[in-house]
This record gives sequence, C-alpha cells and structure tokens, in this order.
Amino acid sequence: MLRSCTGLRSLWALRGRREGAPRLSTDLPPAPVSPGSRAAKMGRKRLFSTEKVIHKDWSLPNPSWSKDFKLLFDQFMKKCEDGSWERLPSYKHRSTQKSEDFKTYFLEPKLVKEERVSQVQLFTRGFEDGLGFEYVIFSNNDEKRTVCLFQGGPYLQGIPGFLHGGAMATMIDTALGSCAAIPGGTVMTANLNINFKRPVPICSVVVINSQLDKLEGRKLFLSCNVRSVDEKTLYSEATGLFIKLDPEKSLT
Amino acid sequence: MLRSCTGLRSLWALRGRREGAPRLSTDLPPAPVSPGSRAAKMGRKRLFSTEKVIHKDWSLPNPSWSKDFKLLFDQFMKKCEDGSWERLPSYKHRSTQKSEDFKTYFLEPKLVKEERVSQVQLFTRGFEDGLGFEYVIFSNNDEKRTVCLFQGGPYLQGIPGFLHGGAMATMIDTALGSCAAIPGGTVMTANLNINFKRPVPICSVVVINSQLDKLEGRKLFLSCNVRSVDEKTLYSEATGLFIKLDPEKSLT
Repeated sequence: MLRSCTGLRSLWALRGRREGAPRLSTDLPPAPVSPGSRAAKMGRKRLFSTEKVIHKDWSLPNPSWSKDFKLLFDQFMKKCEDGSWERLPSYKHRSTQKSEDFKTYFLEPKLVKEERVSQVQLFTRGFEDGLGFEYVIFSNNDEKRTVCLFQGGPYLQGIPGFLHGGAMATMIDTALGSCAAIPGGTVMTANLNINFKRPVPICSVVVINSQLDKLEGRKLFLSCNVRSVDEKTLYSEATGLFIKLDPEKSLT
Repeated sequence: MLRSCTGLRSLWALRGRREGAPRLSTDLPPAPVSPGSRAAKMGRKRLFSTEKVIHKDWSLPNPSWSKDFKLLFDQFMKKCEDGSWERLPSYKHRSTQKSEDFKTYFLEPKLVKEERVSQVQLFTRGFEDGLGFEYVIFSNNDEKRTVCLFQGGPYLQGIPGFLHGGAMATMIDTALGSCAAIPGGTVMTANLNINFKRPVPICSVVVINSQLDKLEGRKLFLSCNVRSVDEKTLYSEATGLFIKLDPEKSLT
C-alpha cells in the first residue's frame, strides 16, 4: 500500500500552532478522577505510560453551550453525586514524548511517520469552541448505558441548515463506542447501521441514549437513539457492533 | 424543541474570519462547468438564484496531496477528456446576500438564526489543507457510479494512528450521496449501513467506489466499497438508502 502524505510537514512548519489548539503549558489541569472509577480504569487501559496527555478536558461547559445544554449538563452532574453516573472526561491530544516511545504504540510504526504522531488529534475535538462537536458523555456502568449530550455547530453542515449525516454518524459512533467501552475496554467499530429519521438542525441540542444489548466473546452489540431535549422528536436510531481489542496486537 | 445556541454570536464577533477560511474577494475563480454537464445541472438544481457562492473549488490538488493521490487524480482527469467521466467541483460556503433572501432558503427560517446562515460551512471542507478531508469525486453518469479519492489527515484520528470511524462514515455518506444525486438531484441520507473491515491509517489514500443498485420512486439504494490504491486492501463496505427531496417542501 502507498501511504505517503507529502507536503504536510512543510505546511505544519509554516503554520505552527493551529488557532484554538491548546498550548502545552497553559491548559487546564486534568479533571479529578476518582480511584477505581471508570475514567481511572479507562485511563489505565487506554493510555500508555510514555504518553504525554494534554490535560484540557473538552467535555466541560464553554461559552458556546446553549442554555438547554448547560441545564442538561447540570442535571446529569447532579446524578453523578451518588456515584451511579459518571462524566467521562475527553482529551484532544495523545502524543509520545520521545521518538523511541513510538515503538511502544500499539499501531504499526510504519503507518504514521514518527514526526507526525505528535500532530494528530481526536477527530471530534478538532474544532474551536462552538463551531463543531460540543458534547459530553455520562456513563452508568451498572446499567451498561451512556447518555451523550450533543450540540452540533455551524461547521458541521450538510444540507443547508442541518447537520451533515456524517457528523451525526460520528457522534453516534462516539456515543456507542463509549458504551461498548464499559465492559469492553479498548474497542473498535465493526458495524454501524443508522436510520436517519429527521435531519438535525444546526446548533440544536440532542440527546443520544446508548445501551449494551448483547455481549458475545469479543463482540459487543449496542443500540442507541437520538432525540430532542424534550424527547418529542426522534432524529435517528442506530445499532453498532464493536470488537474488543487486544492492545498487544497490531490492528493491520 | 429548544434550539438556542447562546454565545456563538459573540464568539464569531471576537474571532472574525477563521484561519484558513477563504476570503470573499480573493478566492480562485470557479472551475469551468460545461453547459449540459452534471455539474451544471446540479448547480441549477441545488443552488438558489439568491445564493452567493464562494468560488474556491476545494476538489483540486493542493500541496498536502500525496504523490499517489495526485497520480490517481491525473488518471481520472484523463478519463474525463472523452466526457464519460466528470470531476465534481466542491465548495465550502453557500450564503445569502441579503437578509430577505433567507426566506427563499428551503429550510425553515426559525431553525437557524438569520445572521448565522452566512457562517455555516460544509462539514467536509472545514479543515485547513491536508489536516482533514482531502477528496475529489469523479462521476460516470451513464454507469450511475462515482469514484471518490480520499486522503484523511491527522485531525481525523480515532484510535491512535487511524481514522475515526465517524470520519470514514462521513466520506462514505458523501461518496454515496454524490452517486445518489446522479438520478436523484437533491437527496438526503435515510440509512447508512457500514461494515468496517480494517482501520484506515491516517494520511493514506483510499478509493471509494459507489454505485446505484436500485431506484424505487423517491428511494435510491446504493452500495460502495473502500479500498487501498492498489486495491489489495478492503477497508469497508457499505450500503445506503437515500431519499430524493422536493426543494419546495420543508425538511422538518
């Protein structure tokens, strides 16, 4: 396979830090993670000791969040107080500190050039506040379900005035994946089947309820629905099949 | 439904033009469109007379395109010479020039505030060159199929080193939609069913072959596959159901 990507290095050099991207030294401290919590477990499972994590948690409110979004967020934060629900923190970058650390990454070193590893970032956190994906996920580990609150910004347009089907698919994949990770740890999407019932208006807030339906060996079967805040409008329904990964094995 | 999106207006005012976003007066001229071509027909179908289109065509090569990407692009441009294939131009913005023009837009005016219509942009063109979705679609109208050449940048990461499933779903939706538009004109995704066979490495080039399988009234059934440039690796297979829209009718 041919995988070169010429010109990117020089573009990066010319542009430097992207507007809105976090600075290494000025980001917020990491969100508190209780010992034994899902976030702590996921942290241990997903991150490698040599990774440098930029500790701005992007799942916290910012000025672009609508009143409804903030109200819902506060309601779920209340639910977190007795420990039945948990807010999942969300970070943009994961990079290796030294070039030799790259060899410990679980992807094949040949796939992404060493100097580019520090440049990659999570797709859903690549936009400035309010322009792209604004979301937070709450997890109920006992009930094996998650709730994702999502406000899609004006950079996610498909048909004029509405979110792109791919933007909705991205959030559905993210929401289902977060639910699959409760029992599965590190997982990868194998199938996504989405019925788009109605288009989602830009800047509206939707709620994605996901649940684990079945677990068969390394296969996790999930489903979700996407509704308006008042639950009267059903925007989408979807199912997902996820596979539990072995971090020791190559993905290719 | 509650659809407010507070704070965005002030954010826009503070930030002004986004880095990398095109300027109204300095963009490239529109790509030539032959009279009677699909691009010309689509232009008539999709754009309204009151819309101001920023005429930078984002489906042309830029310095971030890899050697393989440019080679494939050139091969398909050769195929366009006899008229059997056609390159589809791609624009980032569509906005109304005057506030009263907004009423002629086919979405409900209440859904997106008037002042925000000029701020929205196509999801797949929201990143700077090389960082997000780099793609071009070629269409064969007689055979009712399209070929999308796609290079996913480092801002589309999911699992470290690989594209986010949502980024692939976005390109699959875009590719299938472009094929559905051959007979359907303006279409909307109703179902997307994707089997992810293997993860796609960041910065690699893939080819998405889409075809129309069946047409039933306003329903268009399509399928596609995503392969490496050498065709040896099958990354994904998908089917899509699209609905032909009536621009005179509201979507909600």
